[in-house]
Amino acid sequence: MQIAIVLFDRFTALDAVGPYEVLSRLPGAETVFVAEHTGPLRNDNGGLALTADQTLAEVRRPDIVVVPGGPGQTPQMDNETLIDWLRAVDATSTWTTSVCTGSLLLGAAGLLKGRRATSHWLALEALGGFGAEPTGERVVFDGKYVTAAGVSSGIDMGLALAGRIAGDRTARSVQLLIEYDPQPPYDAGSPDKAPADLVAEYRENTRHPQ
Amino acid sequence: MQIAIVLFDRFTALDAVGPYEVLSRLPGAETVFVAEHTGPLRNDNGGLALTADQTLAEVRRPDIVVVPGGPGQTPQMDNETLIDWLRAVDATSTWTTSVCTGSLLLGAAGLLKGRRATSHWLALEALGGFGAEPTGERVVFDGKYVTAAGVSSGIDMGLALAGRIAGDRTARSVQLLIEYDPQPPYDAGSPDKAPADLVAEYRENTRHPQ
Repeated sequence: MQIAIVLFDRFTALDAVGPYEVLSRLPGAETVFVAEHTGPLRNDNGGLALTADQTLAEVRRPDIVVVPGGPGQTPQMDNETLIDWLRAVDATSTWTTSVCTGSLLLGAAGLLKGRRATSHWLALEALGGFGAEPTGERVVFDGKYVTAAGVSSGIDMGLALAGRIAGDRTARSVQLLIEYDPQPPYDAGSPDKAPADLVAEYRENTRHPQ
Repeated sequence: MQIAIVLFDRFTALDAVGPYEVLSRLPGAETVFVAEHTGPLRNDNGGLALTADQTLAEVRRPDIVVVPGGPGQTPQMDNETLIDWLRAVDATSTWTTSVCTGSLLLGAAGLLKGRRATSHWLALEALGGFGAEPTGERVVFDGKYVTAAGVSSGIDMGLALAGRIAGDRTARSVQLLIEYDPQPPYDAGSPDKAPADLVAEYRENTRHPQ
């Protein structure tokens, strides 16, 4: 079971590493970070670099595709090499997935038309522009398409997908090993829960959701 | 505010990237991944490589130190270069922190004597061997020492630390931006909650907690 995780300049690190940390622990999983070119790719803040070990051209039939988001997603919308690759691998994938604004890339590839999907809360409106039906849910399954909300939601998506792929017992086993028993010290992780003025500030000022 | 995140061969990716994703978003934060040598370091599964941008020798006075864990922690217990560095930077740090079995490295450096601390649930007993008082809590503050439980707990630690450093409003703002509103599909993230047979299996079989 090959799991291809896409990288591009200015991706958001946790979007990629959250699902990686879960899915890479499944029996038979072979994960590969892929990008247009191999080598290190810098994240949104520039302080972190993850290595792409194979090119898009080298990975032709992954079983699972994971597309992260981040500010770097915007220029990728016009990257025909990536968009064409997404369409091509989707033709044979078992699961096509995204975290955060990665769903906008799936949308740009025409893969979410008429499908329920999600994205970072600041990008839900844009998602509708690709014919998807945006939901405010954290993890959305529609057929083989699985989209997750902002950044940290990829861990929840990874576990939900792990259950579908390998069964509840294996998914619980991974959850126990990564000790995923979240206890956030605040309850501000969604626009419904955060202080209204913070939400309004982001809506007004953020043109590049992360 | 310089935040140094330590890397070594066979670290666990989310241990490092969880707190990174939170702390790197604080105002004035300058994050740097450090290791004995610069360049890519492979994680526990080998499928992921993060780049160390500076050597331990180059980073002498970080304000915050973050030490991840993973199977590669074991050989690092005898790495005098790293252990000496931990002692040296701790002399001037504002916060000295760890995720997962990273706390065993702080313990080996003699930094947790008589302090309440935590680690991956499979490593709590070993932590006691360094004179620490192991707790089953997810995030433990004792003076400037902050230790977190296994893997995913570094996100909660990052947010708790963000609140101490930059105030509740900023911490909530980061939580909203990374949309950290966890909704795990299972409730098996701690040995108290997971099926007893899974816990027993790990206790029997795992000598290298991740």
